[in-house]
Order: sequence, then C-alpha cells, then structure tokens
Amino acid sequence: MSPADAAGPADVVVALDVGGTGMKCALVRPDGTTVHTERHPTDAGRGPDAVVETILDVAEGLAGKARADGRDPVALGIAVPGVVDEATGVAVWSANVGFRDVPLRDLAAQRLGLPTVLGHDVRVGGLAEARLGAGRGTGHVLFVAIGTGIAAAHVVDGAAAGGAHGAAGEIGHVLVRPGGPRCGCGRDGCLEAVASASAIARRYAEATGAGPTGTAGDGGPTGTPASAADVADRAAAGEPAAARVWAEAVEALADGLATGQALYDVETVVVGGGLAQAGPRLFDPLRAALHERMTFHRRPRLVAAALGDEAGCLGAALLALDAR
Amino acid sequence: MSPADAAGPADVVVALDVGGTGMKCALVRPDGTTVHTERHPTDAGRGPDAVVETILDVAEGLAGKARADGRDPVALGIAVPGVVDEATGVAVWSANVGFRDVPLRDLAAQRLGLPTVLGHDVRVGGLAEARLGAGRGTGHVLFVAIGTGIAAAHVVDGAAAGGAHGAAGEIGHVLVRPGGPRCGCGRDGCLEAVASASAIARRYAEATGAGPTGTAGDGGPTGTPASAADVADRAAAGEPAAARVWAEAVEALADGLATGQALYDVETVVVGGGLAQAGPRLFDPLRAALHERMTFHRRPRLVAAALGDEAGCLGAALLALDAR
Repeated sequence: MSPADAAGPADVVVALDVGGTGMKCALVRPDGTTVHTERHPTDAGRGPDAVVETILDVAEGLAGKARADGRDPVALGIAVPGVVDEATGVAVWSANVGFRDVPLRDLAAQRLGLPTVLGHDVRVGGLAEARLGAGRGTGHVLFVAIGTGIAAAHVVDGAAAGGAHGAAGEIGHVLVRPGGPRCGCGRDGCLEAVASASAIARRYAEATGAGPTGTAGDGGPTGTPASAADVADRAAAGEPAAARVWAEAVEALADGLATGQALYDVETVVVGGGLAQAGPRLFDPLRAALHERMTFHRRPRLVAAALGDEAGCLGAALLALDAR
Repeated sequence: MSPADAAGPADVVVALDVGGTGMKCALVRPDGTTVHTERHPTDAGRGPDAVVETILDVAEGLAGKARADGRDPVALGIAVPGVVDEATGVAVWSANVGFRDVPLRDLAAQRLGLPTVLGHDVRVGGLAEARLGAGRGTGHVLFVAIGTGIAAAHVVDGAAAGGAHGAAGEIGHVLVRPGGPRCGCGRDGCLEAVASASAIARRYAEATGAGPTGTAGDGGPTGTPASAADVADRAAAGEPAAARVWAEAVEALADGLATGQALYDVETVVVGGGLAQAGPRLFDPLRAALHERMTFHRRPRLVAAALGDEAGCLGAALLALDAR
C-alpha cells in the first residue's frame, strides 16, 4: 500500500453518500473520474446503530474491492444529511437516518485505517456542482437543492461554508410569506412551506380538495396524489389550480433566491434536487422572476444542476481527495 | 524607513474611513493600539475628483506625521462606502461620496509608496468588531449596521466575505414584508424600508400625520421631525403610534436577523450603527423576538457593537496590518 500522502497512479478514494433510503458509493480517482459505483439500501428503520454498522461494512468492502483491483484506497469521504459538525466529524442530528451525535468520522477511520472526512450531503453536493458540475469555473456558487425540503450550500473558491454549528445554508427556512403556511420547523411562511416539492404537492391537493394525503381523489388520471412534477405538467396544460400553486411556488423561490443573492452575492445559482427535473417549466419563469427582483444586486446566472443524484457521492470523494 | 515586511517597534499603519460627511483617520500600531487620530470633512459636494485628492493629501499628511514622530508608516488602509471591489482596489459605486469606478488603491499606493488596501466601510467595521470589539473571541460573527440604511458583514475567522462583486451582506434588502413599504432600491418590503433609522422616523411621521418631512408638525416638543431615537423614547413613554412603529421595526429586524442566521449560522450577531444607541429599548425586545424565531437554528448571541464610530477606521487599520 502506498502512503496516503503520495499521489500514486493507482490511488483512489472511497466515497459514500448516505441518504434516508439508499447509499450511493464510489471509488474515485484523484482526477475526479469514477472507477466503480455501488448502491446499497440504508434501511433506516433498523435504527442508527445498524445503519452505522452498514456504512462501515460498505466502506470496508469498497476499500477491499479497490485493493482486489490493484488500486490503493488512500482516504474515505462520507456524506450524511441533517446537522453535521464537519470540524469534529460528528453526525449531530438527522431526521431521516436517526443519527444523534454519532462520531462517524472517527468510527470509520478506526475501522478502515484511512484518513476520513465527514460532510453534509447538500454541502458536498454543492461542492461537487461548484467544482465539477454546473458551477464549474466560477468562484462564488450557491447550490440550492429542492426536494422534500429546501437547503443550500454556499461554495466560495471550492469550499462550502458550514457555519459555526454545521447549520449554514438553510435557505428553506428563510421567511418569504409572513402568516403563510406552517413549516415543518414550526414557523409560518418559510420558503420550504411554499416551494418544496412536497409543499407543492400538498398545496395542490388542498387546492383541489383532495386533502393533504390525496385520499379523497385529486382529479388526476391515476388516482394517486399528484406530485410536484404532475403539478408542473398540469400548470403547463393550463389547469387553473395547478397554475396558481406552481406560480406561487416560483414567486416564493424567486424571493428566497433574491434574499440569498443579497446576502451571499454569488456569480452562479445552481438549482438541483427533484424539482429541477421540471426543467424549463421551473427555470424559465424562475429566472425571469429572480431577475425582476435584482435591483442593486448583480444578476447571478441561474442554471440547473449537472451531476444529478451523483453530486453527493462525488462531493464526498472531493472531501476525501482534499484530505489525503 | 524600515522595509514593509519587517515588524519594527516603531511600525504604524495609516488608516482612513471615508464617509459621506467626514473622514476618520488614525495611525495604528501592529498590536491594534491607536497612537494618533484626525478627523477631516469629506465635502462630497465638491465631486469625486476633489474627494480623492483630499483622501490622498490626508493619507500623505498622516504618513508624514508618523515619520515626524519617529514612527515608520508601513501600510495604508482605506475604507469607503458603497460597492467596493476589494480584489482590484476599486471604489465601484457610492451614492453619498459620488465614486464611480475609482482605482483608489492604486492611486494611493502610487502617491504614498506604501502597500495599500481598499475596503468596504461596513465590512471593515465588522472586521474590527469581530476581531477587537463585541465579537472578539468568536469565529463566526454577523455585524449589522443600522443607520440611514441597513447593511451587514459576515466575518469568519477574522475575514469579511465580500462576495463575487463586492456586494455581499446586503441584509437591508432582504424581503421581510411582501407588499410593504417601498424601499430606496425600488422593491417593496425590504428590511431597510421598515427598520432603518430613517424608515422608523419616516413611518412615525406618516403615522402621526406629520408627513415625510415633518413640515406639518409632528406633535413633538421641539417642532423638528422626530428621529428614530425620539420614536424609541416615545414608545417607551407609551405613545401608541411610536410604540406601533417601533414594534414593527423590531419585528422586521428579528425576521431579517433570523434569515441571516438561517443562511450564515453565526455565533454572535453584533448590532451597530445609530439605532444601536437605543440600547435596551432595542436589544431587549429584539433579542426576545429573534430567539422566538429560532426553531432548528442555534441561537446566536445578540450584542451591541463595542467600538462605536471608530470601527471603520480600526477595520481599515486591520486590513493594512494584514497586508504588511
């Protein structure tokens, strides 16, 4: 095995992106190319201890696979959701994986005997988009992931800001509609409560009388609750309720991104997550609404994420490569 | 003269904080102590060329004064308001001084023959508060200056974020009241339009029928328009209109600071500028309203600025000391 601080031609890093349902895993070379990928179920219902055991087993298996292929695993990067203290390598809190103060970095470093870095899923996703994806070539990038929730990563010169307690970039909890819909965080009118993919589905179900779970029928062709993508389709087809819910989400997103631009002043805003799949139905009106709001601010480029659901895993690899 | 990169016992830096009405100037030692101060009028009405000439003359005079006192001026720091491109040393734009793309750093470096740094007034003020003032000892600080306008500086590990175009930290233009009062920037409902010192005075004049200029009488004892400080006094004395305007400003500030905390995740929020003079009348209700809004966020300390109107000049000195 070559020493970890030498960049041998056979060097790879082991990268894991741990989500609520699955883990995306890869072996990545120092030039950023992926030489092997794996996916595993997280099975979060088994509890955090079992999930940690699976993470360590999968990481060990990847390192073994690398060696079996004649490569040298030189470092390990792990991305997890929730609140992550990157400085101490602790997964502080996560709703969907169940972590509570898990010293995951040290556990993994001990098991694999490799330099290990722990990162936050959205922040490492932003890192990857900024360095290898849609933000490539620009020094100041805001990556915004819109899915079940909304979170952001502010990446300057290839480093994502974590904040004082690992909680920076919570753009989903920027107030955009005082007295508006109740957010999961307990406040009213957060961006996430109006414009996340799940908020769009919920607000459309409410608007069409389907109720929050869609059990009363939503008027859609399948009988299942309409997703945010369905709402985008129906809005484009001219359905009034869908058009209204979609427009309200776009306006709220423009307000949230304008606030982000006022505070961060970036060159490029990269939007990813499930909602970005709506393509021009999202980006065309959002770009117009955002630019309308830019008065004294410099207008950022608004672009779709380029790396899809690989961003987190690639970002974990970048952290590991930086730590070699 | 000792070389600029040696820290001789007689070394000082020359620091200027250029405002719309006056310039605060100082000679500062490497340990941060001020050995000499001067104030000069800016006289912005003479136009930007004349102001630049005065800045250069004053800086040269300060360097000469240092030498006459047996000290070695080793660097120059200049803080200016508006949009400042710190990387290129250009004063891009300023409403109250009239700068338009003035290469002030290079002009001053040429005239004085000293390493020169140009900074943004609020950002260098934040730098000084974070390193020497109310944020001392904490790594992540948000400095918010509330006066005629509202602007912020995000300081991490002693460095203030400038953004991609020198426009970061514009917390005054965070949307807090959709459809609310028109802001100077052209949008409705910006924080600055509800909660700056001038907005508070204007809103109180409107509420009491005095009109925006106070010419119709404002019911106050002096006959002149009530200032934000007067509004705070009258609110404390139980006057309903003052109490309402003051409470609305405090609520809006809490919303704006909560948004700042969601995005930046700092340990300490330092509030300065004229409005901070209101003391407990501002800080007691603002701290309560801010903490009420902290759901998932970590609560930042909320404290008053410690350096008063010296912060900008001290921050300019810190920039110069860093650049030696």
